[in-house]
Amino acid sequence: MKYEKIFLAHGTGGRETEELIKNLIIPGFTIKNVPNGVGLTQLDDSGAIPVGDSEYIITSIDSYTVDPIFFPGGNIGTLAASGSINDVAVMGAKPIAVMDSIVVEEGFPIQDLKRIIASMNEVFEYEHVAVLGGDFKVMPKGKLDKIIITTNVIGTINKNRKPILDSGIKPSDKIIISGTIAEHGATILALQSGIEALSEGLMSDCQPITKAMEVAMNTTTVHAAKDPTRGGLAQALNEFAEKSNLMIKIYEEEIPIREEVKALVEMLGVDPLFLASEGRVILAVSEEDAEKTVKQLRKNGFPEAAIIGEAVAEKPGFVVIETLSGGLRVINRPFGEIVPRIC
Amino acid sequence: MKYEKIFLAHGTGGRETEELIKNLIIPGFTIKNVPNGVGLTQLDDSGAIPVGDSEYIITSIDSYTVDPIFFPGGNIGTLAASGSINDVAVMGAKPIAVMDSIVVEEGFPIQDLKRIIASMNEVFEYEHVAVLGGDFKVMPKGKLDKIIITTNVIGTINKNRKPILDSGIKPSDKIIISGTIAEHGATILALQSGIEALSEGLMSDCQPITKAMEVAMNTTTVHAAKDPTRGGLAQALNEFAEKSNLMIKIYEEEIPIREEVKALVEMLGVDPLFLASEGRVILAVSEEDAEKTVKQLRKNGFPEAAIIGEAVAEKPGFVVIETLSGGLRVINRPFGEIVPRIC
Repeated sequence: MKYEKIFLAHGTGGRETEELIKNLIIPGFTIKNVPNGVGLTQLDDSGAIPVGDSEYIITSIDSYTVDPIFFPGGNIGTLAASGSINDVAVMGAKPIAVMDSIVVEEGFPIQDLKRIIASMNEVFEYEHVAVLGGDFKVMPKGKLDKIIITTNVIGTINKNRKPILDSGIKPSDKIIISGTIAEHGATILALQSGIEALSEGLMSDCQPITKAMEVAMNTTTVHAAKDPTRGGLAQALNEFAEKSNLMIKIYEEEIPIREEVKALVEMLGVDPLFLASEGRVILAVSEEDAEKTVKQLRKNGFPEAAIIGEAVAEKPGFVVIETLSGGLRVINRPFGEIVPRIC
Repeated sequence: MKYEKIFLAHGTGGRETEELIKNLIIPGFTIKNVPNGVGLTQLDDSGAIPVGDSEYIITSIDSYTVDPIFFPGGNIGTLAASGSINDVAVMGAKPIAVMDSIVVEEGFPIQDLKRIIASMNEVFEYEHVAVLGGDFKVMPKGKLDKIIITTNVIGTINKNRKPILDSGIKPSDKIIISGTIAEHGATILALQSGIEALSEGLMSDCQPITKAMEVAMNTTTVHAAKDPTRGGLAQALNEFAEKSNLMIKIYEEEIPIREEVKALVEMLGVDPLFLASEGRVILAVSEEDAEKTVKQLRKNGFPEAAIIGEAVAEKPGFVVIETLSGGLRVINRPFGEIVPRIC
């Protein structure tokens, strides 16, 4: 590591986070996998443990530190419930159980805690996810900014199915997104910038992506799936490109994005490809099944689902975008601070 | 809830934590179990999910906020690795995998992070626990005191064995402890009180209890097992008494405790029964097998293992101690602040 201290950028999910994980965390642990499972070696959205004959347990963990803790479209509880469900769902698993750990600052209002737990429960109840237990800790006043929630969701993969990995994309596969991008990131960015007026009409998209996964998996074989959270579409597609050893090419005019989000990012000079979604999934499916998959998604509650690009064998590891003006531009992983405490 | 805000005492694992969990957390969640599993309903050390034919997946979560983060006998990493392993082990499971989530304050020294990860790895490597993945977040300077680590450990229970629950104790069962008590609590208490001199010779007992569980399970049928962490022996035994609907009677003269710990608690006027151990296990086994179990423990690396008491059918829900002077005293669950950020 060339740094002596942790920077904010180490936590934004982009290039610096990856450097830290690759240089310090991965080499730091000796056993990175259970036999025939998915672990630190693959560094996918969740871990996988084979159990019994041909079944898998899928397990995810994330700590949520979002600031502000209440925002249009949800709160830290909605996010903590949905986010860890989504990490399990994108592996092709059905989420069944959760463990949660809540750490709050002394003096935290009980009413806020109730609201947050109610939001978590709303998600878990709708998704039929059982809350098996958890932890509750308190830090003295001034030692923690309000609250951190960590969730670990456990899912199962049906007999004879394998976990869906980021490395499964094949040349000529189409890239699909289940809805409009960057809404969670834009909402939090507007709130953090203190420009309340700008956040009008903005709302986080924070929600489980289980339904979209189910529709897609019932229509075709999903080659890869990922929720574009920290670091947005740019980070997620770069991980796809690197792990599948392919180039991903996307088309700006095909990317669904709301007018309110466009207005905000133009005013602030931020690239919406770097902003988090918390309720969308990117799918890689075969060229033949792509139209059919989008059609099914649109018919089943995802009217803005769209094919936004494709995988290409040449220039592996790169992500490029064909812009509205027809030019081609490389999309790098995001770096720098972007939006701290986005999730 | 009769309070409007969270107090420090809500996080110390004693009476207030339990009130909060029983009044706010448990009623807050609708689905508290997977079918035939162990969840919020039982509120045991971990959750249990049945998989395949007659196997169980056991899953634990805890967030570690200990202050100071480095202490004689270990650091927050040793604790985060051992603690969540222990919650799985006391259910009778073999820990196999872990997910970890690290949140640090901006400016946290990389060298400290390396030391902490090295300590976690030391535990995981020794215990053959695979690190499947995790999360890494950064909070801005001043928004978090140094670091919080959350670990989720997953274990498996062999075919035809059931999870060991707190409710499994039978009348006349003997209560065994695997070693001397209160060392982690006493060490952190001395450091937090700023009386360095007092901490001389004190050392946290923080370590996995898997070996002790293995020895006990190879010798007899363990009826209940628990690591006496937050709230110490007092809290753990009260949970045993309540969930097994029995009285637990212990004998002060039988409880193994180091001289250094005795000296500290006498000087500070703290009851050592309220202080955390982080590397001991309390076992309930049948009267017939109790001597044999202690003998095996002593022979296999636990020279201070001892029978400290027994379960009695009358006065269910109570814990009493026969003191050195021969008197009988009720041991309540701890309340108030005791030692904040003990783990």
